[in-house]
Amino acid sequence: MEHVFSIDPVRFLSDLHHLRSFGATGTGVVRPAFSEIDVASREWLASRMEAAGLTPHMDPAGNLFGLAEGPSLLIGSHSDTQPEGGWLDGALGVIMGLEIARAAREAGGPAISCVSFQDEEGRYGALTGSDIWAGKTTLAEADSLRSIDGETFAEGRKAVAHMAGEFVDPGQFTGFVECHIEQGPVLDTAKEAVGVVTSIVGARQVQVTVRGQQNHAGTTPMALRKDAFQGVVRIATMLNDRLRNLVTPQTVWTIGHVRVSPNASSIVPGEAVFTIQWRDGDNDRLERMEKVITSILVEVASGTGLKIEAERLRHDILPKPMDSAIHDALAKAAGQVAPGKWRSMPSGALHDASNVSHLMPVGMLFVPSIRGISHSFDEDTAEDDLATGLMVLARAAAELAPKG
Amino acid sequence: MEHVFSIDPVRFLSDLHHLRSFGATGTGVVRPAFSEIDVASREWLASRMEAAGLTPHMDPAGNLFGLAEGPSLLIGSHSDTQPEGGWLDGALGVIMGLEIARAAREAGGPAISCVSFQDEEGRYGALTGSDIWAGKTTLAEADSLRSIDGETFAEGRKAVAHMAGEFVDPGQFTGFVECHIEQGPVLDTAKEAVGVVTSIVGARQVQVTVRGQQNHAGTTPMALRKDAFQGVVRIATMLNDRLRNLVTPQTVWTIGHVRVSPNASSIVPGEAVFTIQWRDGDNDRLERMEKVITSILVEVASGTGLKIEAERLRHDILPKPMDSAIHDALAKAAGQVAPGKWRSMPSGALHDASNVSHLMPVGMLFVPSIRGISHSFDEDTAEDDLATGLMVLARAAAELAPKG
Repeated sequence: MEHVFSIDPVRFLSDLHHLRSFGATGTGVVRPAFSEIDVASREWLASRMEAAGLTPHMDPAGNLFGLAEGPSLLIGSHSDTQPEGGWLDGALGVIMGLEIARAAREAGGPAISCVSFQDEEGRYGALTGSDIWAGKTTLAEADSLRSIDGETFAEGRKAVAHMAGEFVDPGQFTGFVECHIEQGPVLDTAKEAVGVVTSIVGARQVQVTVRGQQNHAGTTPMALRKDAFQGVVRIATMLNDRLRNLVTPQTVWTIGHVRVSPNASSIVPGEAVFTIQWRDGDNDRLERMEKVITSILVEVASGTGLKIEAERLRHDILPKPMDSAIHDALAKAAGQVAPGKWRSMPSGALHDASNVSHLMPVGMLFVPSIRGISHSFDEDTAEDDLATGLMVLARAAAELAPKG
Repeated sequence: MEHVFSIDPVRFLSDLHHLRSFGATGTGVVRPAFSEIDVASREWLASRMEAAGLTPHMDPAGNLFGLAEGPSLLIGSHSDTQPEGGWLDGALGVIMGLEIARAAREAGGPAISCVSFQDEEGRYGALTGSDIWAGKTTLAEADSLRSIDGETFAEGRKAVAHMAGEFVDPGQFTGFVECHIEQGPVLDTAKEAVGVVTSIVGARQVQVTVRGQQNHAGTTPMALRKDAFQGVVRIATMLNDRLRNLVTPQTVWTIGHVRVSPNASSIVPGEAVFTIQWRDGDNDRLERMEKVITSILVEVASGTGLKIEAERLRHDILPKPMDSAIHDALAKAAGQVAPGKWRSMPSGALHDASNVSHLMPVGMLFVPSIRGISHSFDEDTAEDDLATGLMVLARAAAELAPKG
């Protein structure tokens, strides 16, 4: 038998709009990690946690917990924003965590804590707060990270020195659940209310440099050209042809960055640099895709005489499957609250849950992003969908949280 | 019977190297129009013309003529350079004109004048000096052209006010012949010494804007994307496929400029802007190619849902066929001086001869560019090929020039 408690959607929406007011700019929010407005919002959040009977606790990285006593289920996300962010990215999951922990506390159980991680949006690093808590980066390493305006993480976190204590022992949590806006168009396009995340996809990325021969576009016959941009075109076309046989509808690949040199309309390009990024929930598939990409680069180089080099731009991101018990509890709740209007789906974006998976079982829930828009002042979600997400998460939490 | 005169290859090379010394920078030359060094070089050129018994005359646009008496054949090119130019681009044709006019004068005929046009390389406009002389641009219009450092043509030409007189009456010239380095790889690749130009090719250019939907590269499934760069790839591939059936080995088309927006590896491109430029000696073919390009843009737009717009970036350049009598005289001389080592070919680049064709019959001669390199400090031509070009041009001039 589940431990039942009553969430309050009106109170939830009221708190969500209050958090929005910190850094509100038109329909968007500007609340970067450790900015004055971010610190003020964390002070307010701490006061709301305290009012709910939770113990507010900030760790040295700026992660703010609202702690229940004893072993508990942790729910939350992040409340820092992009330089020009939407009002729901992160904030939604934080206030859901607050409301559900508060409602459970009011009902005398089960034990649910909440959290707002810090610098998920990467003012200094990327997912910095959960990175540090998960032990992927030490605090000392993070301290030397520098924001675009030159400030270090060490300097940034001085702004919360008055609130910060020790790190929180992750052993007290039985699991972590994060609700987030989808930040993609899948649910909105399908007119569905909820997505239960199966895995956070992995990603790989290479930067490809194609070197040909820069030449005058009037005096160089086609047969004597080594046109670097035509190399890019051929590679891109072959990628589309050959990856199609290998992928699922969830697999993606992107050429998002292209730089042609010297980039003049009357000059045959001598060099082109571009990125290929590919993402999938299955690491084997990422590996097979990489083999196809490598073979295409070799084939185009030998077929055209272009010199082609590929360089890894950053470490691979490994796919992170969600905990099956948490997935199943979320799926069961979604089926009850939004029958026929939910799906299981991967997360194409990284989230704090990916880091927290190193510490405990994790799960994630998505609500729709209108037209898939995120990282933009235009980001939004219908109020009904926010409430549906809250109900699904509360039901699953009631099932998952320790019964005390 | 031809009027015979003796050119002096040693004196020619000596003058060519002296002109190189004005603005010499490593193996290259920096001698932009109306710079101090350009003015000094034109003063020296005028003194060499005078020493040869020609009448130096600079017009208000900075074009410097060395005039024979009465009706004459005009030979020359330009002596201004690119910001980082080679030593032969233009200078070769100017000193060939000087040497041939001088040698003819020494022999008592025929009547040959020489010229160095101004601002061919486009510090202010493009082919500005011959543009003004040909009446395509008025001096008043040219005066408002502005260089990249903000100086107007009017301000620039003050530097030669002490030398400048009236415009020269083009009616005194029976034709114009320009020798130029090829600036392409055709002659060098074929190990040939001379190219006789059949036409200066025409060119058309469009700037294409592809608008899709900017999206997160992790969260947007392939099937829901409107990727502007993928539109560019598809257009470029179709261009290659469909233009092949329409063109000659001399036809060229180039995508030289590409700008992807926002140009980040994790973002599906929302917009891409690129240029398509195509050149051919036959205006009908240019027109048929444009119809193919337009139909591809329409087809890709309707097949992908991308919004595609094309805009003409500048006026068309019409192909300019060379005068057949001048072509034939050059071809005959080439066959005598360099049997089996010459060809008829189009000029893929624009030259002053294109403008001068509005005033009188014109012809052009090419010598090889080593590895096709031009507009670069590395530009060069073997000394033997320079001498061969001089001999061919002198023979043709002897046949073409008025016999007095």
